[in-house]
Amino acid sequence: MKVLVLNSGSSSIKYQLFDMRDESVLAAGSIEQIGEPGSHLSYALPTGQPEMKKAVQTLPVPDHHQGFQRIAAVLKETGALANPGELHAIGHRVVHGGEQFQKPARVTPAVLSAIRELIPLAPLHNPANLLGIEVALESAPLVPQVAVFDTAFHQSLPSHAYRYAIPKKLYEAHQVRRYGFHGTSHYYVAKKAAEFLGKPLDSLNLISLHLGNGASAAAIQQGICIDTSMGFTPLEGLIMGTRCGDLDPAIIFYLVRETGLSAGEIETILNKESGLKGICGANDMRAVGELAERGNPEAQLAIRMYCYRIKKYIGAYHAVLGRLDGLIFTGGIGENADFIRAGCCEGLDHLGLEMNNGANRERRLGCAALESGTSRVKILVIPTNEELEIAEQTVTCLSSS
Amino acid sequence: MKVLVLNSGSSSIKYQLFDMRDESVLAAGSIEQIGEPGSHLSYALPTGQPEMKKAVQTLPVPDHHQGFQRIAAVLKETGALANPGELHAIGHRVVHGGEQFQKPARVTPAVLSAIRELIPLAPLHNPANLLGIEVALESAPLVPQVAVFDTAFHQSLPSHAYRYAIPKKLYEAHQVRRYGFHGTSHYYVAKKAAEFLGKPLDSLNLISLHLGNGASAAAIQQGICIDTSMGFTPLEGLIMGTRCGDLDPAIIFYLVRETGLSAGEIETILNKESGLKGICGANDMRAVGELAERGNPEAQLAIRMYCYRIKKYIGAYHAVLGRLDGLIFTGGIGENADFIRAGCCEGLDHLGLEMNNGANRERRLGCAALESGTSRVKILVIPTNEELEIAEQTVTCLSSS
Repeated sequence: MKVLVLNSGSSSIKYQLFDMRDESVLAAGSIEQIGEPGSHLSYALPTGQPEMKKAVQTLPVPDHHQGFQRIAAVLKETGALANPGELHAIGHRVVHGGEQFQKPARVTPAVLSAIRELIPLAPLHNPANLLGIEVALESAPLVPQVAVFDTAFHQSLPSHAYRYAIPKKLYEAHQVRRYGFHGTSHYYVAKKAAEFLGKPLDSLNLISLHLGNGASAAAIQQGICIDTSMGFTPLEGLIMGTRCGDLDPAIIFYLVRETGLSAGEIETILNKESGLKGICGANDMRAVGELAERGNPEAQLAIRMYCYRIKKYIGAYHAVLGRLDGLIFTGGIGENADFIRAGCCEGLDHLGLEMNNGANRERRLGCAALESGTSRVKILVIPTNEELEIAEQTVTCLSSS
Repeated sequence: MKVLVLNSGSSSIKYQLFDMRDESVLAAGSIEQIGEPGSHLSYALPTGQPEMKKAVQTLPVPDHHQGFQRIAAVLKETGALANPGELHAIGHRVVHGGEQFQKPARVTPAVLSAIRELIPLAPLHNPANLLGIEVALESAPLVPQVAVFDTAFHQSLPSHAYRYAIPKKLYEAHQVRRYGFHGTSHYYVAKKAAEFLGKPLDSLNLISLHLGNGASAAAIQQGICIDTSMGFTPLEGLIMGTRCGDLDPAIIFYLVRETGLSAGEIETILNKESGLKGICGANDMRAVGELAERGNPEAQLAIRMYCYRIKKYIGAYHAVLGRLDGLIFTGGIGENADFIRAGCCEGLDHLGLEMNNGANRERRLGCAALESGTSRVKILVIPTNEELEIAEQTVTCLSSS
């Protein structure tokens, strides 16, 4: 049973093909710079080793439709999907599901128009996600398709956590509320953490930290998400590579007055020039770590701020969860940056979080426990796999509908 | 030794006259609606009872200069300050001291111009505070004057707590950082809490909640403020009467696009139409409490959101403080609204906070302990007195300079 997962951006399509009998990856890759001179297809095939065989083809890909055709062709040529009839389903990552989608949805005309109506809430992402679905429907009209929403896992937030203290009509007429993102990742790692701990997910209180280029925290009570740090958009919350995270909203009005920048220009600064990059000039945590190691004070400040913000979220979620069983690190930074994991847990012994520094520093693949023997709370690294989770949810959605 | 404390707003001057030998209030009152048809003087004099004798005079007060003259006249007429030569000093509340003022400052031409330079950071408050000082200098040139800053207590924040994750040049060139406000109140109640507990302030880790029409939290580690919820402006942080507190900053850009409102109009909405008022229509917590009691779901939501936001701050500050000795409630709501205090502490037993519900409900004047016998953390109500603190700091500043 083969399932193709697509993540369609404004000028890219990422794909992974799974064999769901054993959850193995049959092929993975992406088309980048669609419609631009440098458009190219990258693909990787399994070799029986952890490392896949990789290749890049530079070729003209004028639009998403051609992009999808190229992906289908390479899947056929390489034998990953020699017979298109073997494709059980296509699962699509869709960023914003608004309040309409609490779970994955089989693609229908009504679902397509609901995703279209949500464009004002995710003007950068939903149009591209929608285009990816439309192109796939055109090219493979007989294959069932499922939309899996990045917001869905957070739809369980109670109203006191998702509402902002702004006029009620801005919620009712303009849908302004906390949605949260990275939901597929938070759910996947929570489930994997429960498996790793050998306990049912609905018996566990967890805080999950998805720390990648974007970053967010989620508070998960007995398997149900009750709060998350991204809000109406992915700008709120933790410090990210180039996004500011939490900010006094009045700073925007001050900058409009004092600098003469437009609201749009300030929006760009807060999304593209802020975060780690704004503090120290580098937005990749590896570069920030190296700068800090060499004594750069801005990079050291960036790391202190990054970890301090996370510690406050850990404290806040620990308070409202009532009891904390596990803290999960995931995402590129969460899985790889031991100094960040150490900084986030430092001085939190009184919350029951005690790191085993040796285990934290050890490099490994897969899930691992990093807490000391006396730690009341488990500290886990759980590699995320949003594509696999989308594939699984696609299968579940189709089998239950 | 008599000290006059002035709090000068754009159309008002509030005053209190203290006898600093016993910290008694000799007179208190205000001039309101300066320059408007309804301008009037309210004043109160001690009667030997907790309730002071109050009176209102409606009279034309065209400007702050005339206002100060009226205050001087009423202090003389009523005998509170029969001989102006008895006035030891005047202490002024100044909202914004920027990074320049870590403590109170005796007013000099350099201090006046520093306060003037900070006007862009506090465009609503510093001009009026400055006018009050200038008028007092003109009218009482021989009396020493001291400026006491609402931001000063928070100047001890470490850089990882006061910096935002925005481009460094916005901090360096435009002074964008967390300043915090209500500092005089947070310091006063922390000091009083230490007295009440019979312990030195520098041995205590405290969270102080100033809950009035404005509201803020402060994390105080061994007497030193290490974090606070108000930020660059008083808009950030807790939910307030009409201010939104924490908000995804991207909501502003969305509202500009979707509603056609200007940035300035949105600023007004977030300051004047949000908070409790935005959620349920009422901005006074007594009214919100009554509505909730009568079953109004918006008012019930407003209370849940208000307390939930505070619980997250308690958790965040508990995490970074490392150990918590006391939680302080102050301000009109903190001192009087037992249902808010209960809501803020509910379910925080795992942080060592256990309320004695009977003690919480009891109405009283003065400081009180509200925790149960088994609570690891003290839960205190400490009535704030910013005017007295300003008077004390005025005396200290003059005696040390």
